[in-house]
Amino acid sequence: MNTMAKTKLQTLKGFRDFLPESMAVRQEIIKRLRGVFEKYGYQELQTPALEYQQVLLGKYGQEAEKLMYLFKDQGGRDVGLRYDLTVPLARVMASNRDLPIPFKRYQIQPVWRAEKPQKGRYREIYQCDVDIVGSMSPIADAEIIAIINDSLVALGFLAFRIRINSREGLFSSMKQAGLPKEKWLTTIQSLDKLDKKSQKEVEKEMSEKGLTKARIGDVFKSVKTAKPDEFLESTMKYAAKMGVLRNLVFDPTLARGLNYYTGPIFEAVVDEPKIGSIAGGGRYDKLLKDLGGPNLAATGTSIGLDRVVDVITETNLWKGRKKPATKVLMTIFSPKFVDRSLEVASLLRKSGINCEIYPDENAKLAKQLKYADKKGFLWAIVIGPKEILSNSAVLKNLKTQKQETIPTQALLTRIK
Amino acid sequence: MNTMAKTKLQTLKGFRDFLPESMAVRQEIIKRLRGVFEKYGYQELQTPALEYQQVLLGKYGQEAEKLMYLFKDQGGRDVGLRYDLTVPLARVMASNRDLPIPFKRYQIQPVWRAEKPQKGRYREIYQCDVDIVGSMSPIADAEIIAIINDSLVALGFLAFRIRINSREGLFSSMKQAGLPKEKWLTTIQSLDKLDKKSQKEVEKEMSEKGLTKARIGDVFKSVKTAKPDEFLESTMKYAAKMGVLRNLVFDPTLARGLNYYTGPIFEAVVDEPKIGSIAGGGRYDKLLKDLGGPNLAATGTSIGLDRVVDVITETNLWKGRKKPATKVLMTIFSPKFVDRSLEVASLLRKSGINCEIYPDENAKLAKQLKYADKKGFLWAIVIGPKEILSNSAVLKNLKTQKQETIPTQALLTRIK
Repeated sequence: MNTMAKTKLQTLKGFRDFLPESMAVRQEIIKRLRGVFEKYGYQELQTPALEYQQVLLGKYGQEAEKLMYLFKDQGGRDVGLRYDLTVPLARVMASNRDLPIPFKRYQIQPVWRAEKPQKGRYREIYQCDVDIVGSMSPIADAEIIAIINDSLVALGFLAFRIRINSREGLFSSMKQAGLPKEKWLTTIQSLDKLDKKSQKEVEKEMSEKGLTKARIGDVFKSVKTAKPDEFLESTMKYAAKMGVLRNLVFDPTLARGLNYYTGPIFEAVVDEPKIGSIAGGGRYDKLLKDLGGPNLAATGTSIGLDRVVDVITETNLWKGRKKPATKVLMTIFSPKFVDRSLEVASLLRKSGINCEIYPDENAKLAKQLKYADKKGFLWAIVIGPKEILSNSAVLKNLKTQKQETIPTQALLTRIK
Repeated sequence: MNTMAKTKLQTLKGFRDFLPESMAVRQEIIKRLRGVFEKYGYQELQTPALEYQQVLLGKYGQEAEKLMYLFKDQGGRDVGLRYDLTVPLARVMASNRDLPIPFKRYQIQPVWRAEKPQKGRYREIYQCDVDIVGSMSPIADAEIIAIINDSLVALGFLAFRIRINSREGLFSSMKQAGLPKEKWLTTIQSLDKLDKKSQKEVEKEMSEKGLTKARIGDVFKSVKTAKPDEFLESTMKYAAKMGVLRNLVFDPTLARGLNYYTGPIFEAVVDEPKIGSIAGGGRYDKLLKDLGGPNLAATGTSIGLDRVVDVITETNLWKGRKKPATKVLMTIFSPKFVDRSLEVASLLRKSGINCEIYPDENAKLAKQLKYADKKGFLWAIVIGPKEILSNSAVLKNLKTQKQETIPTQALLTRIK
């Protein structure tokens, strides 16, 4: 054997192993998000990693096709790896016509994109989408905004804004500025950069795109005096009733990249710690039908799970949080005195305490304690012949290095 | 657009969507299993869906290669989809030499195998592996057995056995029966079928494989009088100390298919409901090194998550369990009276109640209640102009169809 040659023992570029420590953070994040989604009545959906190419290619066209993992399977079928979570949603809605409408679902799964790997950009990306299908009411948009708000609170972010605008509002600003229709989209794309670039830089970009200085002035004037349309106003009012008041800001320059939005668009920006955009979304009433799904309105958001994980880890946002789930190491004193240790460990587990056994009858105690320390445990228990005779145990606090001999039945209350 | 043509709106054969109802069962199963694993100090690992082919192909050889999803990525690299969770474990151990040893990990992720799809057999398979790397002690094997035991208890199975044997024990039985070495493996493979076939059928198979009647008699005699070797005896004794006594049976005919086991092997069989093997595993001290990983002993188990889900669903094992997480639908009385409903819903959520809003200001009340019923809710709340004036709400029990008007602040206690 030995075919896993020494040259290729690594993961592919852009792909990651999640070792226990980072996995624990990921799972805690997912648990908190699930909690929020389910509080609003959203239910989980999962779909296959592989789909027919025909299903995958509907949405984005050739540009995206280059980034998709496409291949022929053993049966000669043209298949590919999931590229996003919206296309599968459209397929599910199309093939399960008896789902309750409005359908509120969340989906947390990886998607695969062969982008150039770089810091913070991966080829296996964990997405977290929350959408509501079949409602044309601004209540739905407001609910999605409330979910974003509650999610960011649940994750412990200290200060954030949710920027909101509408595609139609942007278009009417373009119109008002007297811009020819063929310039609208490209101008909007420049405006979208105002969150990262200065107004000067954006003006320069517009002028490079062929807009006169006067016209650029008109665009900025028209955008800056824009007011939310009626639908957007209702959305904001309803969001306020759901408790999102202070964090929600109308921002007439917000554009969002994708072209399929039809109503309100929104983006969550975290200011403390200063990490920028972390979730985005909007209303897309025509997309599901365009993808071959049913003719149903929809609105939703996508939370960048990888970004959230990176940010929480890097900024040490959760430093106060209690750490690993396992708290106690049961050591093995020697080959002759294994049984009692196993029994007591079993007892502790039955009482709800996570208790790990060091699985080696011959390991030196020092080695076992070092292991417990490396794994970040607070307690270690030693049961030798003396303790067995007196039905007691040595309980060692690994932080203070203090130890005490206590009756076995006192272990529980002492550790808890 | 409309490229998701009507002909190909389905999933690929052998792949499944998990709609909310089945997803809820899956997640509950995973939650219970995680709880058990973590009680024993096992921590979660996740690895990428795609690996270098060189990494994947090490273990099983050409037979399995046919079932692997292999292809060239955009960069011309030979890649493939994860085929099991053991190969990634070996790779992780090889490239992370500073992991605490013994390394106790669990991993719950899909693997992909292009097998012929049939009832209960999928191409996207959810595996759940629990392994301990770096311990040569029978304490480790006993712990894995205790984990299997506690998992089956946690899942609510009423009666089950864990069969245990050792590869070496089987070999010495073959030797004792005077069987030539080249017949050992094939004979063991026949013996392994004793759990599903009668002794007569197995004898017939052995005779077709060229064993004389007398030799077959010797094999059965030798196997049936076999006793656990010393390591196995320690494993069983330790497992008993961990609380697995009644459910653990030495079964000298247990063989298990794969060839890489080196010590104890075990298999969990559920008898009530009668569903057969649901988890298996054993000690594999040489495999990680053979795969290019470090020279570390290991033992572990694989729980067939898809099978567990199917079985719990089909046998209705959890029928007593309380159902969906969302319990309350907040209806919308009319466009004029949306705000109060949103506020009260928000209040209920803040108090820990899952409360869903019907996102349509114009929907008939009957339609909203039908939706709540379809989603299996117990309660619906209606707040119209009369209720707003009197700061109250109509609370309707959807099972009994009884409704009452109560003060808003009484909703909480009434629903809880």
